Amino acid sequence: MANHPIRDLIEAADRAITGEDFDALLDFYADDAVLIVAPGRIARGKAEISKAFVAIAAHFDHSIAVSQGRMEIIESGGTALVIMETLLDKTGGNGGQSRETRRATYVFRKDDAGRWLCAIDNSYGTDILDATRGDGASPTG
Amino acid sequence: MANHPIRDLIEAADRAITGEDFDALLDFYADDAVLIVAPGRIARGKAEISKAFVAIAAHFDHSIAVSQGRMEIIESGGTALVIMETLLDKTGGNGGQSRETRRATYVFRKDDAGRWLCAIDNSYGTDILDATRGDGASPTG
Repeated sequence: MANHPIRDLIEAADRAITGEDFDALLDFYADDAVLIVAPGRIARGKAEISKAFVAIAAHFDHSIAVSQGRMEIIESGGTALVIMETLLDKTGGNGGQSRETRRATYVFRKDDAGRWLCAIDNSYGTDILDATRGDGASPTG
Repeated sequence: MANHPIRDLIEAADRAITGEDFDALLDFYADDAVLIVAPGRIARGKAEISKAFVAIAAHFDHSIAVSQGRMEIIESGGTALVIMETLLDKTGGNGGQSRETRRATYVFRKDDAGRWLCAIDNSYGTDILDATRGDGASPTG
């Protein structure tokens, strides 16, 4: 069975993150996309998202590899909710490996040309509630 | 500070669930909305969603009350991801109370008139990955 097209996009985007190919990575995002950099910290639009990924790569000392675990894609018209395990593999300075698994939530939207674009990228999933005020206001950066 | 309009909608929808006012409840959903009835079981469109809520009310012996805990709303253009604690209070036949807290994920979309409608209703949040194949295919009902 062919993959859902959004699964292919996420795999390609995660390869771009791993390879630090941020120009390719930005193609997966809508112009007004929102990235949760950390609970309470938002990047909005491609310029801020690009800066955030450059900072994240530096923060992890350019040693992070991103891949996908289990994934569910729930579509309604031109909108899709993705629930997914994101696997973050880090290589330490001493060559040691560590793996962190997050449960992410992404929202994709189809543009007028029928192309799926990421509109909301929240790699923290429902854990975001543990770190924020939780009063319904959007976290601000 | 005024509530986010989506918070007001969710509060009103949860009151409609508690009061079993399913006609009012359906007004909150887009025509092509998807409801995760249980992991792996989907209701699609207002007719199926209505039937699902009637069955859910009967399943809980008409004794369920739904309210909201912590909530985050992340907006990108006309799309919003809601991460929220859903509190389910059940009254048993002997008058005993029990509370279940779920971490839900909802996607809302603005229609052409600027009204927010629920497009995807997944009250299981990221827990949906525990119960499904996780290969990227949408669960089917």
